[in-house]
Amino acid sequence: MKYDLIIIGAGPAGYIAAIRAGQVGLKTALIEKKNVGGMCLNWGCIPTKAIIESAKMFGKVINAAEFGIDGIDKNHLKFNWDRSKKRALKIVKKLTSGVEFLLKKNDVDIIIGEAVIHDSHSVSVDNRNIETENIIIATGSYPNEIIANVDQIQIIQLEKLFDLPELPRNIVVYGKGPVAVEMVQFLHMIEKNVSLVTPDENILPGADAYLSEYVIKMFQSLDIPVVYSETIDKCSDGLLYVGDNMLQCDKVLNCSLRNAIIPKSDADLVKDEAGFVYTDESLQTSQKGIFAIGDVNGRSYLAHVASAQGIWVVNNIKGVKSHFDIKNYPLNIYTYPEIAQIGKTEQDLIDDGVDYKLSTFPLSANGKALTEGHSDGLIRMLSDKKYGQVLGVQIIADHATDLIAEASAYMQIEGTVYDIAQTVHAHPTVSEIFMEAGFEAIDKAIHK
Amino acid sequence: MKYDLIIIGAGPAGYIAAIRAGQVGLKTALIEKKNVGGMCLNWGCIPTKAIIESAKMFGKVINAAEFGIDGIDKNHLKFNWDRSKKRALKIVKKLTSGVEFLLKKNDVDIIIGEAVIHDSHSVSVDNRNIETENIIIATGSYPNEIIANVDQIQIIQLEKLFDLPELPRNIVVYGKGPVAVEMVQFLHMIEKNVSLVTPDENILPGADAYLSEYVIKMFQSLDIPVVYSETIDKCSDGLLYVGDNMLQCDKVLNCSLRNAIIPKSDADLVKDEAGFVYTDESLQTSQKGIFAIGDVNGRSYLAHVASAQGIWVVNNIKGVKSHFDIKNYPLNIYTYPEIAQIGKTEQDLIDDGVDYKLSTFPLSANGKALTEGHSDGLIRMLSDKKYGQVLGVQIIADHATDLIAEASAYMQIEGTVYDIAQTVHAHPTVSEIFMEAGFEAIDKAIHK
Repeated sequence: MKYDLIIIGAGPAGYIAAIRAGQVGLKTALIEKKNVGGMCLNWGCIPTKAIIESAKMFGKVINAAEFGIDGIDKNHLKFNWDRSKKRALKIVKKLTSGVEFLLKKNDVDIIIGEAVIHDSHSVSVDNRNIETENIIIATGSYPNEIIANVDQIQIIQLEKLFDLPELPRNIVVYGKGPVAVEMVQFLHMIEKNVSLVTPDENILPGADAYLSEYVIKMFQSLDIPVVYSETIDKCSDGLLYVGDNMLQCDKVLNCSLRNAIIPKSDADLVKDEAGFVYTDESLQTSQKGIFAIGDVNGRSYLAHVASAQGIWVVNNIKGVKSHFDIKNYPLNIYTYPEIAQIGKTEQDLIDDGVDYKLSTFPLSANGKALTEGHSDGLIRMLSDKKYGQVLGVQIIADHATDLIAEASAYMQIEGTVYDIAQTVHAHPTVSEIFMEAGFEAIDKAIHK
Repeated sequence: MKYDLIIIGAGPAGYIAAIRAGQVGLKTALIEKKNVGGMCLNWGCIPTKAIIESAKMFGKVINAAEFGIDGIDKNHLKFNWDRSKKRALKIVKKLTSGVEFLLKKNDVDIIIGEAVIHDSHSVSVDNRNIETENIIIATGSYPNEIIANVDQIQIIQLEKLFDLPELPRNIVVYGKGPVAVEMVQFLHMIEKNVSLVTPDENILPGADAYLSEYVIKMFQSLDIPVVYSETIDKCSDGLLYVGDNMLQCDKVLNCSLRNAIIPKSDADLVKDEAGFVYTDESLQTSQKGIFAIGDVNGRSYLAHVASAQGIWVVNNIKGVKSHFDIKNYPLNIYTYPEIAQIGKTEQDLIDDGVDYKLSTFPLSANGKALTEGHSDGLIRMLSDKKYGQVLGVQIIADHATDLIAEASAYMQIEGTVYDIAQTVHAHPTVSEIFMEAGFEAIDKAIHK
């Protein structure tokens, strides 16, 4: 039997591509060497969000008296790592079984084992040869597991976080980007003694400088030590040495950046300088008929971008051609408050020489945010000065990661600040900040 | 001195219109006989949402152990009405002072007193005559305070809710619509013994029948007695009699529908059958130069519609003409989970003979909803079968009232289900339900 499509790797790039392929009638096999769902479902996006929700709940309970809840003895409250972890893994199990069900429902063959690519039409798993019309590589990425001058025994690899029976008291997070930022704040919320070692102040690559600065300021206000350094000098006797700094440290949580997982291949796959699989505009590798989607092509580390690439490549294989706008996706950071961004940053617009307008509106003037007890944050809207087209939106708010979807909608259909101002937003809702920023962009916000 | 505009009533219709008028340079006076902010800010939208957030927090704390929070003794937990009320009123104070500040900032004169309209250009307050070019009536509405066969002493008028030092144990909510539904659930969440007397199963007028049915089913599952009746027979000795039903009742919370507050006027203002001030397409009353916005014109009871009407009329007076789409606004219900709707209902489409498609996606298949612990709910998307235009969206979800804003965006710019499916939604977010419903409308959802 010959497949229409073989997909290697069952993370959010591969499994979504496989479901889509099944839906459009391609005879598809999905090869996975470890866990269906990949990093995202098994130890990334989903379980980390679950434990972050637990940590947020801990914070809510601590402050619930303000809302009029009597009978909580703060001295008795304790974060139960084991229970929060089990809750997270239960959700993982529900979702991964759901994915397996959907794959079967859409007639995708799941093959467990390691794939070896022979050529554009041939793959083998455990020496069993499989023929195919097309191949999609969706093998993802893995972290650099080595931190110079730190023993492996002192390092917690993120992939192993959910294996730990308990978390140590003093943790140094090493790295940058959303994962590092989220982990620092999670550990702080559950009352661990956490510090951050990060290469420079640009803690959120790709995000607007305003957001990076916000995060650093937030950590400072929470008395979380932040040390800027690429390297660690030494870690011993519960202390981590970086230049003149000594940080309390039982373990280092490794949130360093990630490298491509390159599948074994007889066909030569060209790689870029950073070691990711090169892809052209149609996400095809240097080998005709072999595509690469998700982390492995180095275009982003975001699950939703990986999934979108998967759907897009499958549609393309099926003959549905469309333009793939690689810039128009949200970047979400699950801190408290949450941080979200879509489109251009201010620096992008300055670099592009665009005449733009920045309009902002603070949550502290939003009634619903006040009732929810989350008035720290704002919306920042970047629009074209002449035509009012929305070019970028950033939100800091309790549910920013969902609120940003409204911005995605306007940007998808090239909406303007006039459209936003004219859209009736329900009262009282946090989403009214969009309308206010829209009015502000045109002329004046109502409540400012 | 002659004003460009006199606005009577400082609720969300009037005060927003006044700020807007000030912004566009109209010399404006705002006349209010009671409280700046009106019903919405003082005892409606804002403080009720604040106590609902307190009640939700109570529910969260009760169930926090599931998230891994140790040390909560459920037997000691108690909802403190007084404290939640004071929190709500503190938010009210912050917002009303904010509104007063904004009115002054925009050079609006606030006149406290009762207005009498003499003609299109003349109003008096406490016998002081004021000349003006235009008048906007924004006097709002008041509830029918009388419930037949129930003594006034047995009735809690909503306006007086926040004056109560404590809430009785057994409460019967009388009425229909969002306010009645929200109050029933609020009282249930804070562990009161609540029942509902409502005229018929159409408990949410204007909402899709699916949503009304959902609410009734939810109340049934919470063991909240629901009795269908327009009238109450008797209320005595802690019992309320309706037909064959006897409900435990210390007080009846009056959530009956509302009547227009008609200002004193020498000029004859034509009213509709239900007693609301008649307005034409430009929201002008039967008197040229006198407009009516918000509850008083009977077009809706929603604060955001009132505000939108206010901005629109002011723009019109200033010469900025635009079309006012009276149908394209969200209807939000702050239950738990929240309920939100925009655009057409299924019945609307059937009545209009539209060939439509209903696509749905459940929260139980959404990863972020699972991590948040809120997987009860769904999205329902109604779209035109031929062109895919989004015609209506309904959401039941923890933050449905904010999520609906994405639907508002698509509908404002006449977006289609293709646009929605192509919009990259961040993972993991609850907003992914939009993308799934979009795919479902076109062909097949990914995760279904």
